[in-house]
Amino acid sequence: MAMIETIRWTDEGVVLMDQRKLPREETYLTCRSYREVAEAIRTMVIRGAPAIGVAAAMGVALGMLEADSGDPDAAFEQIVRTLAATRPTAVNLFWALERMRRVYREIRGQPLPLVRRRLIEEAERIKQEDLEVNRAMGRHGAALVPDGTIVLTHCNAGALATAGYGTALGVIRAAREAGKRIEVFACETRPFLQGARLTAWELVRDGIPTTLITDNMAGHFLKSGRIGCVIVGADRIAANGDVANKIGTYPLAVLARENGVPFYVAAPLSTLDLTLACGDLIPIEQRPAEEVTHVFGIRVAAEGVNVENPAFDVTPHRYVTAIITERGVARAPYAESLRRLAENPMGREPR
Amino acid sequence: MAMIETIRWTDEGVVLMDQRKLPREETYLTCRSYREVAEAIRTMVIRGAPAIGVAAAMGVALGMLEADSGDPDAAFEQIVRTLAATRPTAVNLFWALERMRRVYREIRGQPLPLVRRRLIEEAERIKQEDLEVNRAMGRHGAALVPDGTIVLTHCNAGALATAGYGTALGVIRAAREAGKRIEVFACETRPFLQGARLTAWELVRDGIPTTLITDNMAGHFLKSGRIGCVIVGADRIAANGDVANKIGTYPLAVLARENGVPFYVAAPLSTLDLTLACGDLIPIEQRPAEEVTHVFGIRVAAEGVNVENPAFDVTPHRYVTAIITERGVARAPYAESLRRLAENPMGREPR
Repeated sequence: MAMIETIRWTDEGVVLMDQRKLPREETYLTCRSYREVAEAIRTMVIRGAPAIGVAAAMGVALGMLEADSGDPDAAFEQIVRTLAATRPTAVNLFWALERMRRVYREIRGQPLPLVRRRLIEEAERIKQEDLEVNRAMGRHGAALVPDGTIVLTHCNAGALATAGYGTALGVIRAAREAGKRIEVFACETRPFLQGARLTAWELVRDGIPTTLITDNMAGHFLKSGRIGCVIVGADRIAANGDVANKIGTYPLAVLARENGVPFYVAAPLSTLDLTLACGDLIPIEQRPAEEVTHVFGIRVAAEGVNVENPAFDVTPHRYVTAIITERGVARAPYAESLRRLAENPMGREPR
Repeated sequence: MAMIETIRWTDEGVVLMDQRKLPREETYLTCRSYREVAEAIRTMVIRGAPAIGVAAAMGVALGMLEADSGDPDAAFEQIVRTLAATRPTAVNLFWALERMRRVYREIRGQPLPLVRRRLIEEAERIKQEDLEVNRAMGRHGAALVPDGTIVLTHCNAGALATAGYGTALGVIRAAREAGKRIEVFACETRPFLQGARLTAWELVRDGIPTTLITDNMAGHFLKSGRIGCVIVGADRIAANGDVANKIGTYPLAVLARENGVPFYVAAPLSTLDLTLACGDLIPIEQRPAEEVTHVFGIRVAAEGVNVENPAFDVTPHRYVTAIITERGVARAPYAESLRRLAENPMGREPR
């Protein structure tokens, strides 16, 4: 199967696979302005913490192509502000914008064509690095997954959530590439159905045996003894190892521990937010009620009912067996292990 | 609001509110043969353990209207066999069929018109008793719910799941009738969406403030401290207090205990199966894959993915704070408390 290309820089603009329409249609959306990129992030044309980071970086580069030479600093800040206001939880967004800002500060004042070229290069580099980081996570994580395991995953932490290959699904892919027989149970992941629509689509394409379940079935199967481990991605990890991820992750972690099943988080170090002491400080995005009351435009809920739609929950670190990063596997106490990995400037993999 | 009448015996046949079509259409289906009643139970036109019991009893009465006088015993057994084969988990189905069989055995050999009249009377009595039983459960359960509580519930254990009033929702209604301010968080309950479609519809009709969430959000809200207690119904309760109920109940029980939130089960004694020592012995129905892959006829899941669709899970009794029955509230050790309630032949309420 051809590799899935979630996002691509072209002369026409930033081209995104429209994930709202999968699996029914494989269509691509070309964003021709940074505002269109921001709208695509906000409306989840593209989603997944690492992919959002790449999209934001490309959005900055695209925005500076639009900017005139009058006041490029102001234009840059306006672009960053607009992109930063799209989604609050995934820290990779802010990480990518900050990285673009550092590059911009180094070269500001130079001729605009040069600034533009350098920003495009940096966005492309962020994308390329994300792929490499996923491969490295896969290598580290694959060692944790025994041959013959059924892995339970939630949401989509796959190629579609990254520049390609995936975080949680990257670990599964790497385990398969290492010759292990791995099967996947995918939670459908209401309300946006990333599991049913995206994870199932990716894994079926790759020929990985995949069973779809509704989110509320996970407890039953974790209790049954059939699930060997849980692997999920993350949208933000606090300094103490608390993990914000797609709503429904926290229940999986509790149910995994209750049944003696290891619970792994696979995330690049760009998902770490060492400025936050614990997960209670992570902002949780509230999404529109229509995502819950409607499915593919059809109303499924009774009229007149209130709705809450938090897009993420926080899993306290005590439920997390290990966090798989591109520099190695962190275990409790996470405050130390995560800082050590983050401060390893050479990117060497600790043994 | 007019009371919801889930099921009604008429001269035309057994009239059911078609719960597959709620909340979009309030339509009624008239079953003119016992086979049509069986099909309506199987396809979930009517669902909910107590309501299935009433429907099965009416199905038996309807079947004997169809039977000729040739071999009424054989006809009776054929009718019971057909109705018993519809859904395996809710024991109220078998309880109601057994009750109809006991009546039939008492009067068999008498003139068919008399047998028919007596069976219709018994089915009507089962329906009427279910209403009274729900009211009694409501009285017992309401005392457990403090003023100002937000109650989390799952699936639909309401008027639509019974002859009226409800089990879990009956407790909520009784607490409101006692003057308490009670709000409800309703889990949408994939795949059949009984929470979004039925519970939300019932409670909005009754003016009870109700917030709809997806099933995977329950953990987040249980952890938040906002939920005062969980109340659910049951499809079968083993002698030791293990509870089979709609898929997704077990996770709620684990998450409630993890967060110090009481977890209550409201169920009539007809839901008790003292022949089963523990919940592992309860047969779990597997439903069609299309319930998971499609919503209102629209495919939401990627093609080629496998599906598991267990309709129920089993909550071990250690997670259950109390079981609310029509004869009082049972607490651990359930093997004793449930047997005591079941053996109380006068239906007096123990204090």
